[in-house]
Amino acid sequence: MAETRWLDDEEQHAWRSYLRMNKLLEAALARELQADSQLSLPDFEVLVHLTDVPDARLRVSALARSLQWEKSRLSHQIARMARRGLVTREECPDDGRGAFVVVTPDGRRAIEEAAPPHVETVRQLFFDVLTDDDVKALTVLSERVLDRLDTHTP
Amino acid sequence: MAETRWLDDEEQHAWRSYLRMNKLLEAALARELQADSQLSLPDFEVLVHLTDVPDARLRVSALARSLQWEKSRLSHQIARMARRGLVTREECPDDGRGAFVVVTPDGRRAIEEAAPPHVETVRQLFFDVLTDDDVKALTVLSERVLDRLDTHTP
Repeated sequence: MAETRWLDDEEQHAWRSYLRMNKLLEAALARELQADSQLSLPDFEVLVHLTDVPDARLRVSALARSLQWEKSRLSHQIARMARRGLVTREECPDDGRGAFVVVTPDGRRAIEEAAPPHVETVRQLFFDVLTDDDVKALTVLSERVLDRLDTHTP
Repeated sequence: MAETRWLDDEEQHAWRSYLRMNKLLEAALARELQADSQLSLPDFEVLVHLTDVPDARLRVSALARSLQWEKSRLSHQIARMARRGLVTREECPDDGRGAFVVVTPDGRRAIEEAAPPHVETVRQLFFDVLTDDDVKALTVLSERVLDRLDTHTP
């Protein structure tokens, strides 16, 4: 194997700061979302993805793809949310392409109530400390990494 | 409550790109780490934190703080890693301040073998597509968000 291209001090520092920001930011967002709205971050993510599409309904398989979750994790999550009346699962015995998940009126109410305080937290913890240039730089950088991930084969 | 400061299109785009990058990058790093070394990302994180300190031993409580994990999550993780011989748990009945976690020789070998391919993946998926300015911008931005998180009270 070729010689290891270790990170230099600056890269090491950047990488650790980035990982630490991700972790602490996600923890803070989850904590405040739960306090403001009784939704977990995964509940919120599922509801955002569902209410983003026409009729607020998606095949389980399409939702798993769009969330980038394992099917089994999503099934458990949907079962929990269905018990709380936030979504329903509609089986499609006809076409063999699997069940739909649909937002209920309660689910829609939950996300509509959760979104304003959540976006305020995102502003306070993130956008309020970034300049316009930071936002642009972060977008460009994220898309470059996403392009790389898209074409990368180990 | 004051009017919601919704994200504008550019911010929305930045936020979604950033979240998506985090998620897909972490998934790819976890997949390749597991394929190269049979360590999960949490195994790797625990070993990095332990081998970063003198004697490669930490109190469970200090390790939990430094990883920013719940104590119960860390206990399960340590139990699993102890069964695989990567760490040992040393009880301290004397001082009442709780057990230590210590890296075993096998744990040290595991992280030493895992690190080179892992850092190569981090390079290929992340640093290889960033300029020096991107790296600087990301560091500054991460630290500003971390400072905000540090002083923020909901």
